[in-house]
Amino acid sequence: MIYLDNAASTKLDEEVLTKMMPYLTEQYGNAQSQHAAGRASANAITAARDKIASLVGCRPDEVFFVSGGTEAGNTALKGVCALHKKGHLILSSIEHASLSESASDMQKLGFDVTFVQPESDGAVLAENIAKAMREDTIFCAVMAANNETGVIQPVEEIGKICREKGVFFYTDCVQTAAYLPLPANCADAMGFSSHKFYGPKGAGALILRKRSDVLRLISGGMQEMGFRGGTVNTAGIVGTAAAYEKACVNRDKVNAHIKGLRDKFVNRVLTEIEGTRLNGDINKMIPSIANISFDGCGGENILFLLDLKGICVSTGAACAAGAVSPSDTLITMGCGISEAKSSVRFSFGKHNTEEEVDLVFDALKFAVEKIRNN
Amino acid sequence: MIYLDNAASTKLDEEVLTKMMPYLTEQYGNAQSQHAAGRASANAITAARDKIASLVGCRPDEVFFVSGGTEAGNTALKGVCALHKKGHLILSSIEHASLSESASDMQKLGFDVTFVQPESDGAVLAENIAKAMREDTIFCAVMAANNETGVIQPVEEIGKICREKGVFFYTDCVQTAAYLPLPANCADAMGFSSHKFYGPKGAGALILRKRSDVLRLISGGMQEMGFRGGTVNTAGIVGTAAAYEKACVNRDKVNAHIKGLRDKFVNRVLTEIEGTRLNGDINKMIPSIANISFDGCGGENILFLLDLKGICVSTGAACAAGAVSPSDTLITMGCGISEAKSSVRFSFGKHNTEEEVDLVFDALKFAVEKIRNN
Repeated sequence: MIYLDNAASTKLDEEVLTKMMPYLTEQYGNAQSQHAAGRASANAITAARDKIASLVGCRPDEVFFVSGGTEAGNTALKGVCALHKKGHLILSSIEHASLSESASDMQKLGFDVTFVQPESDGAVLAENIAKAMREDTIFCAVMAANNETGVIQPVEEIGKICREKGVFFYTDCVQTAAYLPLPANCADAMGFSSHKFYGPKGAGALILRKRSDVLRLISGGMQEMGFRGGTVNTAGIVGTAAAYEKACVNRDKVNAHIKGLRDKFVNRVLTEIEGTRLNGDINKMIPSIANISFDGCGGENILFLLDLKGICVSTGAACAAGAVSPSDTLITMGCGISEAKSSVRFSFGKHNTEEEVDLVFDALKFAVEKIRNN
Repeated sequence: MIYLDNAASTKLDEEVLTKMMPYLTEQYGNAQSQHAAGRASANAITAARDKIASLVGCRPDEVFFVSGGTEAGNTALKGVCALHKKGHLILSSIEHASLSESASDMQKLGFDVTFVQPESDGAVLAENIAKAMREDTIFCAVMAANNETGVIQPVEEIGKICREKGVFFYTDCVQTAAYLPLPANCADAMGFSSHKFYGPKGAGALILRKRSDVLRLISGGMQEMGFRGGTVNTAGIVGTAAAYEKACVNRDKVNAHIKGLRDKFVNRVLTEIEGTRLNGDINKMIPSIANISFDGCGGENILFLLDLKGICVSTGAACAAGAVSPSDTLITMGCGISEAKSSVRFSFGKHNTEEEVDLVFDALKFAVEKIRNN
C-alpha cells in the first residue's frame, strides 16, 4: 500500500505507541483516584500537559485534553454561544465541518452566522473578516490551514482584528499542528487532533486562554480542572504529548522531506499530465497537501483506479467523503463545478518515499489517460 | 498491588487489547476515507456497531460511539434541552457528575431542575419521580445503579412513568453495563464507558432510540451517521465491542465470582470489625460494590493506610475524588456527615481473588484499629 492520505489520518508512530503501552496494560488506574494506581496515571497526565504547554508556549492550565479537534472546535464555538445566548458568528466559508456544522446548529438556536469566502488562491483576506464584523459579533473562526487545499490562512492578522473588536477568535490547527507552531499569540483558542501527527485517534487538545469565555461542552467531574468531564484517556493523552513533541522536535527535517516529495510530485503532474491545475497557491501551503484538478476526469474515478493499485488518496476531506456534491472549498475559490469534481487531494507524510512518489505518478498518469480515453 | 477500585476503572483485558492492536499499528485508515485503508477501518466500525446492537437489543443505527459515559449523558441531557429551549428536568440526587453538572450548567441557561432523593436503602422511589413531574418536564435521568453504593435503581418503573408523560428518559448505565443487561426497553437513551468493563479508556457508547429527540453535542462530518463528528477512534471502538461482548458472554460466571468475593468481604467486615455499616441494601446492589462506613475513622485515612500496603480503594466516586466534602449520595440516603466521611468504597473485579479479599481484610482491620487507637 502507498498511503497519500495523511491529511485524513496518519500511522501511529511506533515510539509513540511504545510510550502508550504501559497505560494500555499495567497502568490502568483512573487518574482521579487517590491511590498509587491513580497517581501513576495522574502523573502521566500532568507530565503530558506540561509538555504540551511548553511546546505550545502557554500555561499548563490552558491545555485541555479532549477527544480531538472536532470536540475542541465545538467546545469553543458552542461554549461562547452558550454564554452569550444570542449574537453573530463569523466563519470562513472553508472551515472544517466541526466549525461549520456547529455554526449551522447554532443558527437553528437563533444565532446569526456570516461565512467569509476565500480568494482564488485559497486564502481568506483579513480585511474581509473585518468587513463582516458587527456590533453583536461574538465569535470568529478561521482555520490555520485548510484541510482540502493546505492553504495557510492569515490568522495573525485576523486575530489582531478580533482582539481589537473584543471578538473571541478560534483557529482550528488540525492541519497545521504537525507543520507549524500553534499561533498561540493571536488566538483565544486553538485545537488539534493527535492522529494527524502520528499520534492516536480519539485524542487531541483544546488550548484555551481564558476559560471563563466559554461554557464547557462536556460537564462532569473534576477531570481537566473541571472543564471537561469523563475519565481521562491516559494512553491517548500520553500518546498525544509524545507525538506532538516528536513533531515539534523533528519539524524542520520532516517538513523538508515532505515538501520535497510534494513539490516533486506537483511538478511532475503539472508538467507531464496535460489539463491539470493545482488548487491554491503553493507558496501559501503547508508542505503536505497537493489538491489537483484533472480536466475531464471525475476525482472519484481517479481515486478508484489508484485504489485498485493499492494507492490511497482522497477527494476532498475525509469528513465529507461519500458526498457526491463537489467541494465547497474549491467552489468558493472560484473553481467551476466540473473542475471541483475533478479534484484529488494527495497528502504526504513522513513515511513516504521518493520511490512512492514515482510509482504514484505513473499510476496516476495511466489512470487519467484511461478515464479520458473512455 | 491489590486493586479494589474497579468501579473507577478496570484493567484492559488482554484479549481485547489484542483485538485493538491492528488498529494501533497497520490499520490506520480514517474510517471515512474511500480507499482500502479507510474501508478496513469502516468495516471494523460497522462490525462493532452491529455487535453492540445485537448484544443490547437495539438497531445498529441507535448505537453512537462516543468518548465515554460522560459524553453520552451530556449529549442526551443537553441535546434535549437545546431542542426545547426551556423547561424542567428531573434528576435523582445521586446521579453521576456528568448528569448533575450538566443539569447545573443548564440551570445557568434558564432551565429548572428538580433533584429527587433516594430512600435510606439507596434506591430512588419511582413514585417520587412521578410526584416531581410537571407540565413542562422535558427530561428525566435516573442511573441504572449508583456509582458509590452500587444500589440498582428502579429504571423500568421510572421509564414507564416517563413514557406515559412523554418525558425523555436517560439512564446512565456506566456502573451496570458489566453486570446487567441494558434496560433497552424502558429508556429513550442509555450510556456506558468501555473502561468499566475491561475495555479501553476514552471510549463508550450512547444508545439513542430516536435521534430527532436530541440536538447533537459534537457537530462535524458524517461520522456516526452525522450525529457525532470527529475522526472515529477505531481501536477504541473495536475494543469497546470486544470488551462488551466478553462482558455479556461471561456475565453469569463473572458476576458469581465477583459477588462471592464481595459478599465474603462484607460479611467479614460487618461481623469482625465493630462499628461498621454497609451503605445501601445489599439485596439491591450490583455484585461489585461495597460501600462501608467505619465509625470514628476518616475514609481518607483508611485509603491512605491501605495505599501504603499497595491496596487500591476509594472514598466516594473517582470523579469527585480529591473533594474533602462528604458524599452527597450518602448524605441524601440519611447518613450523618461523620458517617459519610468515614465511608470507603471497595469495588471488586474479575481479576480479584479470594486470597486478595483476605489480605485486604487483614490490612483493613489493622488500619481501622490503628486509626481508632490514635
